[in-house]
Amino acid sequence: MSQQSASRITPRAEDYSRWYLDVIRQGDLAEPAEVVKGAMVIKPHGFAIWEKIQRALDDMFKETGHQNAYFPLLIPESFIKKEAEHVDGFSPELAVVTHAGGKELEEPYVIRPTSETIIGHFFQRWIESYRDLPLLINQWANVMRWELRTRMFLRTSEFLWQEGHTAHANHAEAKEEVQRMLRIYARFAEEWMAMPVICGEKTASERFAGALETYSIEAMMQDGKALQAGTSHDLGQNFGKAFDVTFQNEKGESEHVWQTSWGVSTRLIGGLIMTHSDDNGLVLPPKLAPVQVAIIPILAKNCDENQIFSACDKIQEELKAEGISAVCDKRDYKPGYKYHEWEQKGAPMRIEIGPRDLEKNQVMMKGRLEQEKTPLSMDNLRGKIQAYLDKYQTMLFERAKTRREESTINIDTYDEFKNVFAGQNSRFVYAHWDGSAETEAKIKEETKATIRCIPLDQPEEPGHCMISGAPTKKRVLFAKSY
Amino acid sequence: MSQQSASRITPRAEDYSRWYLDVIRQGDLAEPAEVVKGAMVIKPHGFAIWEKIQRALDDMFKETGHQNAYFPLLIPESFIKKEAEHVDGFSPELAVVTHAGGKELEEPYVIRPTSETIIGHFFQRWIESYRDLPLLINQWANVMRWELRTRMFLRTSEFLWQEGHTAHANHAEAKEEVQRMLRIYARFAEEWMAMPVICGEKTASERFAGALETYSIEAMMQDGKALQAGTSHDLGQNFGKAFDVTFQNEKGESEHVWQTSWGVSTRLIGGLIMTHSDDNGLVLPPKLAPVQVAIIPILAKNCDENQIFSACDKIQEELKAEGISAVCDKRDYKPGYKYHEWEQKGAPMRIEIGPRDLEKNQVMMKGRLEQEKTPLSMDNLRGKIQAYLDKYQTMLFERAKTRREESTINIDTYDEFKNVFAGQNSRFVYAHWDGSAETEAKIKEETKATIRCIPLDQPEEPGHCMISGAPTKKRVLFAKSY
Repeated sequence: MSQQSASRITPRAEDYSRWYLDVIRQGDLAEPAEVVKGAMVIKPHGFAIWEKIQRALDDMFKETGHQNAYFPLLIPESFIKKEAEHVDGFSPELAVVTHAGGKELEEPYVIRPTSETIIGHFFQRWIESYRDLPLLINQWANVMRWELRTRMFLRTSEFLWQEGHTAHANHAEAKEEVQRMLRIYARFAEEWMAMPVICGEKTASERFAGALETYSIEAMMQDGKALQAGTSHDLGQNFGKAFDVTFQNEKGESEHVWQTSWGVSTRLIGGLIMTHSDDNGLVLPPKLAPVQVAIIPILAKNCDENQIFSACDKIQEELKAEGISAVCDKRDYKPGYKYHEWEQKGAPMRIEIGPRDLEKNQVMMKGRLEQEKTPLSMDNLRGKIQAYLDKYQTMLFERAKTRREESTINIDTYDEFKNVFAGQNSRFVYAHWDGSAETEAKIKEETKATIRCIPLDQPEEPGHCMISGAPTKKRVLFAKSY
Repeated sequence: MSQQSASRITPRAEDYSRWYLDVIRQGDLAEPAEVVKGAMVIKPHGFAIWEKIQRALDDMFKETGHQNAYFPLLIPESFIKKEAEHVDGFSPELAVVTHAGGKELEEPYVIRPTSETIIGHFFQRWIESYRDLPLLINQWANVMRWELRTRMFLRTSEFLWQEGHTAHANHAEAKEEVQRMLRIYARFAEEWMAMPVICGEKTASERFAGALETYSIEAMMQDGKALQAGTSHDLGQNFGKAFDVTFQNEKGESEHVWQTSWGVSTRLIGGLIMTHSDDNGLVLPPKLAPVQVAIIPILAKNCDENQIFSACDKIQEELKAEGISAVCDKRDYKPGYKYHEWEQKGAPMRIEIGPRDLEKNQVMMKGRLEQEKTPLSMDNLRGKIQAYLDKYQTMLFERAKTRREESTINIDTYDEFKNVFAGQNSRFVYAHWDGSAETEAKIKEETKATIRCIPLDQPEEPGHCMISGAPTKKRVLFAKSY
């Protein structure tokens, strides 16, 4: 497949879904693995983003006392059935191993859709006393959920994620952990992904199968829809009881542990794309961009190629020493081709160096979102580039936040609410809801908007449910979602 | 399970296999996952070693131009059958997914035992021209091989590994890559794991299923047996032809690519254990030890606990700033219990600090392999500790190398050969072999020793096959193996 023939990116205004897939293709992030239903291949440029996400989150997990471990991919089918709500939630999506080593298995295994059950089994073996608590474990792994409708990064049959699993001696500590990890996810989303999020509690109907409470971070995509970008669950003693995970408390009595779990996945990359990218392709925050600076040598006729190349190499080395990842693109293509490619791959900045620039002791630089090139003197180039990247990171966050604010409204009547969500439209809408599952279901059915969360940081504001008129204490967040 | 009741480690001399499992249990590295046949759970202390292995190898792969990507876990069953030798080699060990999403699948999937086939499928889509070559990809992933006899780390039904997959425009470049990666594995084994290895070519009967040639690094364990610790394969055009991976060469003609693959796995941790550990538990080279220094506060009656703790914290901080990983063990256990635990977990050094030490501006230090404690003045403590760790790393390598040399012999007659391998015994034996599969099979059947490799760095030495008497050019390496 020639890169040029397929290089057009459908504009967002024309077809948002096509735009998303085009950005992924042209950014060389991933491609569908049609031979495996609903799966994808994460290509090097996409995987490099995931590696940066992993590194940053892993550091945050370790700073808060968590340790990584690795549990089996396969789970005995009977384990999934031990927690009643869990089996209802996950059974329809399971992939099942029935044969192995040339024989039919006595009991089939499922490929983990999530690991609460198998980890519950081991926690039961590892925990004896209050001294063993809290037990703070994280796992980076692949999981599988056989979904009917898939979309690259957002929902795939197999995906990569991390799943934290912790056990505590009492409910208060477990609840603290749930909030701690939710806030770490929010901080990561905002400081690294430059993606503003709203922290909140899910309604009962949107809870993780087996949890007492589920919290999430919700981000707004450019089409006004919400993306649930990370979740943190208070599992109470549900799995502790299902897998008989007990400990002796300080009084010598046996109690069931209190557990939490929390996870983010390669879905974050979908959120990254839909938060920042434009009709020219990928736009990446510098902290997660695999290539922060693309250096393009400009060869004029009769110029000394080696001189230009070595000037480019020198800058690359200098940037590398500063922790800035730069690529020196010496491939045998025309500069315009390279500009186009690095733009589509989301490099925050490109630098051009030709013979004239060398004479003037300068480079030409162009930011990913700028129209014009600017000359930059070579003096203290590193410092200027770092400052530019820092500013660019902040700017992307501010831009996304402004867009969200402009698309967020308070609504008090259901007629107005239905108007806002008519057709394909979505916004973030704060409205009053009476707390009943019936009202929630009616709204979802009639408008396709769902309660994204009951925001934690939203001030109390007494009002009345827009449907039932029942009195309420605060507004909740509605939107259509991915 | 109480730590103390099961804390005895069977001496090597008494039962080497039990010793190995005891070291793993007491080192808290892993445990069998009996509920999933042949699988294990890698516990935090074991996984931390794997993370260090990953980080070091990944840096080496990237320095040599490789990029990480991620391919699907599931492979259509038909893919495995496209390369004739490949299917013969792997079919008996496959785990098969026959149902997903509540339905029977039209074509079953296998869980990847290795990814040549699915990656071949994508290389076919990605490669068009000589400009796309070489394509240098690596994947960190879980794989599954349903083996009959398993042993933690050495052979488990599911294991973690990296698999490199590269495509080249000609055989010479592919062969260069095969050697480059073999030598990277050897360097990693020796410089990081402090585990001396022998680089060599496998005989035809020990080749990877589908390869033209397989190379390996072979290490000697403490029982004299060999561990194949990493392999690098010249796949020729076998998979290129099976998956029709072609490229246009510079003349515009279509050719099949030349491929390589290479991998190391969590088996390396088994090698690490059996190279260095002793009857007191784990011994780890500092470069891969999750905890390099265990700091133990010694609280005397009426002493100022906070003063001791803060002295310990200060040292930990200072070491951390130097890149030395230290744990300050303030748990409510007696010092002797902690000494024992950190010894079994392989911390290269322990430091004790009590009120008397503080008065004298010193700490007491004990290396993992030393009998006695030594006082160390606090002046330039960091420098002294780093110097100790460096020396310890070198010493472990030298010790292992000496042991290997003492257990390596040249043998010229088959009678002597059979004697060496009688019973459970093994050594590294260099002997002459006529190059025939028949002789190789006869030796294996009669002695259980196999040709580990045809060493690359062994000088030529004309001789005669110890069985057939046929003339030979150099000796090959025999041993019993894991």
